Amino acid sequence: MRTSIATVSLSGSLTEKLTAASRAGFDGVEIFENDLLASPLTPEEIRARCADLGLTIDLYQPMRDIEAVPSDEFDRNLRRAEHKFRLMRRLGADTVLVCSSVSPLAVDDDALAARQLRRLAELAQDFGIRVAYEALAWGRHVSTYDHAWSIVEQAGHPALGTCLDSFHILARGSDPKGIEDIPGEKIFFLQLADAPLMAMDVLQWSRHYRCFPGQGGFDIAGLVGHVIRAGYQGPLSLEVFNDVFRQAEAGPTAVDARRSLLVLQEAVGLAEPPAPVVPSGIAFAELVTPDAEPVSAVLEALGFTRTARHRGKPVDLWQQGEARVLLNTGPAARRDGTSLAAIGLESPDPAGAARRAEALLAPVLPRRRAPEDAPLDAVAAPDGTELFFCVTEGDEHPSWTSDFEPAERQSPPGEGVHHIDHLALTQPWHQFDEAALFHRSVLGLGAQESVDVADPYGLLRSRAVTNADGSVRIALGVGPAPTADEGGRAQHIALATDDVVTAARRFRAAGGRLLPMPPNYYDDLAARYEFTDDELATYRELGILYDRDAGGEFRHCYTETVDRVFFELVQRDGDYRGYGAQNAPVRLAAQHARRPVG
Amino acid sequence: MRTSIATVSLSGSLTEKLTAASRAGFDGVEIFENDLLASPLTPEEIRARCADLGLTIDLYQPMRDIEAVPSDEFDRNLRRAEHKFRLMRRLGADTVLVCSSVSPLAVDDDALAARQLRRLAELAQDFGIRVAYEALAWGRHVSTYDHAWSIVEQAGHPALGTCLDSFHILARGSDPKGIEDIPGEKIFFLQLADAPLMAMDVLQWSRHYRCFPGQGGFDIAGLVGHVIRAGYQGPLSLEVFNDVFRQAEAGPTAVDARRSLLVLQEAVGLAEPPAPVVPSGIAFAELVTPDAEPVSAVLEALGFTRTARHRGKPVDLWQQGEARVLLNTGPAARRDGTSLAAIGLESPDPAGAARRAEALLAPVLPRRRAPEDAPLDAVAAPDGTELFFCVTEGDEHPSWTSDFEPAERQSPPGEGVHHIDHLALTQPWHQFDEAALFHRSVLGLGAQESVDVADPYGLLRSRAVTNADGSVRIALGVGPAPTADEGGRAQHIALATDDVVTAARRFRAAGGRLLPMPPNYYDDLAARYEFTDDELATYRELGILYDRDAGGEFRHCYTETVDRVFFELVQRDGDYRGYGAQNAPVRLAAQHARRPVG
Repeated sequence: MRTSIATVSLSGSLTEKLTAASRAGFDGVEIFENDLLASPLTPEEIRARCADLGLTIDLYQPMRDIEAVPSDEFDRNLRRAEHKFRLMRRLGADTVLVCSSVSPLAVDDDALAARQLRRLAELAQDFGIRVAYEALAWGRHVSTYDHAWSIVEQAGHPALGTCLDSFHILARGSDPKGIEDIPGEKIFFLQLADAPLMAMDVLQWSRHYRCFPGQGGFDIAGLVGHVIRAGYQGPLSLEVFNDVFRQAEAGPTAVDARRSLLVLQEAVGLAEPPAPVVPSGIAFAELVTPDAEPVSAVLEALGFTRTARHRGKPVDLWQQGEARVLLNTGPAARRDGTSLAAIGLESPDPAGAARRAEALLAPVLPRRRAPEDAPLDAVAAPDGTELFFCVTEGDEHPSWTSDFEPAERQSPPGEGVHHIDHLALTQPWHQFDEAALFHRSVLGLGAQESVDVADPYGLLRSRAVTNADGSVRIALGVGPAPTADEGGRAQHIALATDDVVTAARRFRAAGGRLLPMPPNYYDDLAARYEFTDDELATYRELGILYDRDAGGEFRHCYTETVDRVFFELVQRDGDYRGYGAQNAPVRLAAQHARRPVG
Repeated sequence: MRTSIATVSLSGSLTEKLTAASRAGFDGVEIFENDLLASPLTPEEIRARCADLGLTIDLYQPMRDIEAVPSDEFDRNLRRAEHKFRLMRRLGADTVLVCSSVSPLAVDDDALAARQLRRLAELAQDFGIRVAYEALAWGRHVSTYDHAWSIVEQAGHPALGTCLDSFHILARGSDPKGIEDIPGEKIFFLQLADAPLMAMDVLQWSRHYRCFPGQGGFDIAGLVGHVIRAGYQGPLSLEVFNDVFRQAEAGPTAVDARRSLLVLQEAVGLAEPPAPVVPSGIAFAELVTPDAEPVSAVLEALGFTRTARHRGKPVDLWQQGEARVLLNTGPAARRDGTSLAAIGLESPDPAGAARRAEALLAPVLPRRRAPEDAPLDAVAAPDGTELFFCVTEGDEHPSWTSDFEPAERQSPPGEGVHHIDHLALTQPWHQFDEAALFHRSVLGLGAQESVDVADPYGLLRSRAVTNADGSVRIALGVGPAPTADEGGRAQHIALATDDVVTAARRFRAAGGRLLPMPPNYYDDLAARYEFTDDELATYRELGILYDRDAGGEFRHCYTETVDRVFFELVQRDGDYRGYGAQNAPVRLAAQHARRPVG
């Protein structure tokens, strides 16, 4: 099926929007009237631009407050419509969206609405145009899709059909099953938008919080299934207005939009991209840094050993148990300071994982970096983090470690840490929902609930994606706003240990500095849980935080931050599923307090 | 009455919050538990810090999920409470807030709730502490203030009273009149928050959208009246959580908070600041610029004449009719580029206006700038704009113009413009509501509805404040987010004319450049209204925009932008009350399109 996107879903000028839609691979666009009005291009120029970009103009939208009005008002409306039909001819658009009236002049009279819409369709037909009538969820008298369809049916004109919009249908709580009762050829258009499930005024909800399918809480795939079974042949078109997208760059938003449609098409059986290959572990985390010393010192104190060096690049492999950290002092580091730049994901089928990622529009990175390197499949996540699909010392696939030369002198390895528990990445402000959708759809990970965390200087949101056995956990965080304190931008590597107390003591004995936690926190722990005095004194001394959920317990502590990266030592007992979000405000305040003033 | 503020209302560390509250003149604070937990200070140190700052600790908050639970759970709760009471002794706080339970363990049993709260109060009494029980609007079984009070009454213990929270009461739609039935001495605490009227989930509404009294839609003054009449003697305390305040600096937020309480106290007769002196016109607008030439050229083309120069400073007075623009090339300009830095407000009583402003915590600016200057009363608005209260050539008060020396050579004045129609100021992202409250309360202006405007790169909000006859109009705008395109940051001076077509033609003939508008806009005008072809052609040629409301018509056009300032020519006919917001997206897109790339 063809795919389309409404220009109102993207930011920028009309030409920026069209270019972004084309580059992301959409077949067509809905042109939103205000975008056309504000454009310096004539309708003919817009038509030509779309043709050059390989885009059809699938819909012109919207016309409002047309029907069920007194006859003098309707005459004015027809006059206005005629102007618009002429414009559409110049534009080369053959379908117009008419939204159910919100005008105070409109009366509750379906027969009148049908007569007037029929008259409008007759006029449209003269111009070779079709009218798609849609129920706005907040329409004055017509607010449900079945009501809109019954008026269209009553009007009985070939140039009049209905437009279905998943938001308007699902936000009203209508049962979409009835869509199958509408003849497919009378469904002129289908607009798709998801939204987080919120109890709020439906107009505000629609205008500010719509999102792409799969990013919200509606069953869009179920609805599309009904529409397909009804026999609909038109495009799947996204119409999403959202305060965040308005500020985001059009290019990446268009790609995210198209990815969401691909995933939707897969869900309803309209597309078969390569199946997801769920990663089975974290092979490595790669830090880039302009100066290896501070991070190396922390790694060494944590018990890591520098076991190998890349044959062709300034990259060291540090290892402890199954936890591997690459330290890259190459050119990227000079640009961005110390940051978590790449993740190696243990994959049962690296090439297959890459094929799916590519099919879902993830930018594919060059496969082989130097002739002698093992081929590595890699893609970029929306935040720019490189994701490598790899195998560590497998039999059938070359190991990424074969690019590394064992170090000559290795200190004896520590034993406190056995693997990477999770990685925490900070997303750009406007990419939180996109990031979760990317990790779910491209990598086949499951998304947990998102959590709000109060930072002293703003609210953070965090959402984790994991595989089924928890061997891959990535926490996606987003800061309060673009210019807010950069504390929210920190990234970290959490290391799993069976005994956080011993691991923390060793770290400190080796010269590492733990983030000190406020004494008041421990007084509160004493009030909430029953610890022995010794236990609490130990936690207090080391800055260990504690949490508990229905499944188990969580003890964790933090190293001091190097540039914008820090490490966490975590001990999970039982089936604890979280990340200590409850303790995040205290940790964040402690990190703010340690930051040099000025 | 004493005033207090909850630390959760302000951003930053606990000490930053306490300092801000003290500097803004609050008498006390509510300490929010998480702020204490995250603080490196011991309770004793916090107590000492508050004492040094002249703040009492009026409330420790909150304790949750205490009552109406199974007895083993209640025993754990008592143990937890005892820890907290010990902490409060160290802190020197004698009242604790207990919120109605949201625990799934809680049962719907008022008698049990009363018994357990009584037991809690007995324990509290041993520590010299009082328990204030409050109904959360989303409490599991207790969600209204009268229900909470009936449980308190049933418990019948002197150390147990109720806490009233205006948000919880008004968001539930409860009638606050019943407050008068509660004995004043049993109202242990009063928390105040306003909120915009929104239909949404009450928990989300409360957590993210609370605002200070007077900034939202609730009748807080009415509620406070009932509480006073009940005999309440405690402090008026603000408890406002809001995603925007979390990111704003604590200092200015605390001042805005205190101002909102002062206005509230005035409204209920608890304070008598000097009465507002409503400005009766705009005496001048002052632009600062590092380079006078570009702005002078625009003013000249608009028909302004340089009529005078300040005796002691590099400030020129440009005039046309009653429209006066000061052009200041002094030191401030070198810092900020060209901007609208000050507004002269025609005042019936400049000293009185300044006294009110000062009483409402507006920063007062030095009154006399040089020994020979006329004294000028001035204060700073929240966005830093200087507001001068002045008289232009009055009999009883020295005119600000007496500081100016008439220019020797004056070109003949134009006659197209007769006064300043309005000034448009861009507010810092987090100060939109504060700005409106400031202009309303300090200047006595009325606030119009706020309007959302779609900019190509984000959503703008705009709200106008005016005096009764419309001779003072200030449009306060706010951009989409801190780092968004600076287009939203533009400021402008709108000049009133009786004939915008002639004024625009003259401007162009004099070498001025008007902002060109897209032709598609005029095709749409033709569809919406009936103009003669000539009329439309003229508008199209000059870039004149058109709007209409129930009262009249509005025609307006824009000059090109100098740095971040531009001018608008406006013709109001009939009783048109708006500012052409409908046309703003087209104007903004045209301004974006004219901006040099790069």
